[in-house]
Amino acid sequence: MDGTLQIPRGFRFGGAACGLKRSGAPDLALVVADATASVAAAFTSNLVQAAPVVVSAEHVRRSRGRMRAIIVNSGNANCCTGAAGLAAARRMAQAMAEQIECRREEVFVCSTGVIGRPLKVGKIAAAVPVLEPALGSGPEAFAGFSRGILTTDTRPKTASASLRIGGHAVRIAGCTKGAGMIAPQFHAPHATMLAFILTDAAISPALLRRALGAVVERTFNSITVDGDTSTNDTVTVFASGASGARIANARSAYFRNFVRALERVCRSLALQIVADGEGAKHVIEIEVRGAPDDRGAANVARTIAHSPLVKTALAGADPNWGRILAAAGRAGVRFDPGCAAITLAGVPVFRHGRPLPFDERTAHAGMGQHEYTMRVDLGAGHGRARVWTCELSEGYVRINADYRT
Amino acid sequence: MDGTLQIPRGFRFGGAACGLKRSGAPDLALVVADATASVAAAFTSNLVQAAPVVVSAEHVRRSRGRMRAIIVNSGNANCCTGAAGLAAARRMAQAMAEQIECRREEVFVCSTGVIGRPLKVGKIAAAVPVLEPALGSGPEAFAGFSRGILTTDTRPKTASASLRIGGHAVRIAGCTKGAGMIAPQFHAPHATMLAFILTDAAISPALLRRALGAVVERTFNSITVDGDTSTNDTVTVFASGASGARIANARSAYFRNFVRALERVCRSLALQIVADGEGAKHVIEIEVRGAPDDRGAANVARTIAHSPLVKTALAGADPNWGRILAAAGRAGVRFDPGCAAITLAGVPVFRHGRPLPFDERTAHAGMGQHEYTMRVDLGAGHGRARVWTCELSEGYVRINADYRT
Repeated sequence: MDGTLQIPRGFRFGGAACGLKRSGAPDLALVVADATASVAAAFTSNLVQAAPVVVSAEHVRRSRGRMRAIIVNSGNANCCTGAAGLAAARRMAQAMAEQIECRREEVFVCSTGVIGRPLKVGKIAAAVPVLEPALGSGPEAFAGFSRGILTTDTRPKTASASLRIGGHAVRIAGCTKGAGMIAPQFHAPHATMLAFILTDAAISPALLRRALGAVVERTFNSITVDGDTSTNDTVTVFASGASGARIANARSAYFRNFVRALERVCRSLALQIVADGEGAKHVIEIEVRGAPDDRGAANVARTIAHSPLVKTALAGADPNWGRILAAAGRAGVRFDPGCAAITLAGVPVFRHGRPLPFDERTAHAGMGQHEYTMRVDLGAGHGRARVWTCELSEGYVRINADYRT
Repeated sequence: MDGTLQIPRGFRFGGAACGLKRSGAPDLALVVADATASVAAAFTSNLVQAAPVVVSAEHVRRSRGRMRAIIVNSGNANCCTGAAGLAAARRMAQAMAEQIECRREEVFVCSTGVIGRPLKVGKIAAAVPVLEPALGSGPEAFAGFSRGILTTDTRPKTASASLRIGGHAVRIAGCTKGAGMIAPQFHAPHATMLAFILTDAAISPALLRRALGAVVERTFNSITVDGDTSTNDTVTVFASGASGARIANARSAYFRNFVRALERVCRSLALQIVADGEGAKHVIEIEVRGAPDDRGAANVARTIAHSPLVKTALAGADPNWGRILAAAGRAGVRFDPGCAAITLAGVPVFRHGRPLPFDERTAHAGMGQHEYTMRVDLGAGHGRARVWTCELSEGYVRINADYRT
């Protein structure tokens, strides 16, 4: 864990093993706000939603974004578990509410792990009174929280930022999980993305929602490992107000600076997910410009990022501009290939509808880097977009095709 | 080759090596109709279109679907080759037109192979006067044609059907290429799907277009190996009329029977492409029913067929219904997961929003078959759709990520 993390005030956190994972690894994580915090959240757009997603969305609504705690379990996604699953998610929240003496709807609840199996919520309820009094407010405790949410990630993922607002120091810290390798003993597993961001800024739920909405689009919504949206994806921000720094106006410099810092934290977390993508060794930034509009640029960027032929070329560090151009051409966006240009890891390979002579070795070496940029200019307007993805490797297939025995 | 193919009358065909492929494999294929034939064609929807696609579309339009010949080269796609590429495609057509003394716009032209490299059209033009007089009208000659269009396919793909119309025997025969492995010496290669169908029915270009339109949607447009649409994809039907069987009315039983036979041929060709898919061992039929409408059903079927997590589960013969349900849930189609059901290779695994107890061994064995069906019932209406796909294997990645040295 990172001792240099900027830890926001007004929270206690931690993680522990409550027995959901057979391995004995941490599988429970808690955050408690000292007083009521402002909350904003974004949930999966998948029509199939896990019970904790349904319950947390309901709690955010009912509490009007004023909540006290987060409870997360890993090892079981509590998804496709019917009415019993909903009852289990509520019981998780209830256990936490009783422990810290708040209302159930003031508790945010998340689950990640195997789907279609009943959640042993009794183990969680029994562990809460043990873990809660042991929560801490320093980097060690935050590290404990960040480990408790992991499933098959190869490492914890945290980020933080600090800024000054009206003379007060404000801190933002977050952790995330997702895109990790799936352990073969799981039944019907799937990777879920969860992100928890805490700040000690004083900001209303409405403004916090606005900040998160802007940032999520440019960070978590702009990464893709394999294009498969999970049923449990959740991002939430809790703002304690403990810094004393008040952000009251969406048009203020305070708000803009806060959004910028929040974006830094979210981008770092999002890129850490891509870097830990299944079987991945590269983080590729795909920058599309010259589209008729931003939406068209985003469509092209996503189509390229999801193309199996492009993704396998990335795995081979192969400057295969033909596959990139063909993917752009099927994205449903109007452009003239005769005006298009492609640059790979700084090497221009295609311009004015024609291949450029280029040094294959240089391009191949550039695409061997851990991080690099693919630039696609459609020459058809001012729309731009950026997504981050990783390659499609034999490792990805091996991880996901491995039949449990 | 298949000696039992029903070969339509009124055509001559054949293939040869003209020196485009370094391997010396066949790379030129010709069809000549004895008299003017009715023609219908469908081209790639990719915005990036190869020169022969542009030229053939123009020729079909200018000739009003009344054409004399097809000329195809493999080994070079003549794509992203600018004005010189267009000139080369026209010169191919011109060489054929001069040989058989017809107008250039009566020649249909196709190319497949490496993209972004100039086409050595001189080699083609020189070979046409040698090959054309040697064309034949029997199964051997048709086999020669079907081999001349291949790039990295592992085998030729042909199909035929016959029917009786008003006392006349009518024959339909086709061949196709696509989805084969890409040879590592190619630069920026991509798999193209080409299909050529010949019949001796007498039918107008307008009716033939109508027949092909209906059939393409349910056959070639319903297969996917990796979701990447090529820049050269082309399907065309030539009808010589030599059987004497006249189809003059779209509401006649003649027309319906003809469409049915055409569909049998196209389906067989389409499934042969999937079976020869890169790295593939399985052909999976995905049947979606119970969608709000057919279009929604098709969206769900395609989203499932393109999901890397589903495709890798198929590679592992893993009855992983959670990935299938999650893919359906992100297809943008309204349904209640609580009413959904999934059956894999005949084994019901999910119903009423809950996993069913099932014998894993039986399901695993069923998914080990060369061909099987995945049924997804959304329980939300009467819309249905069917697509065919193959798995995403380590072999697929190996083939496509292999960096040429």
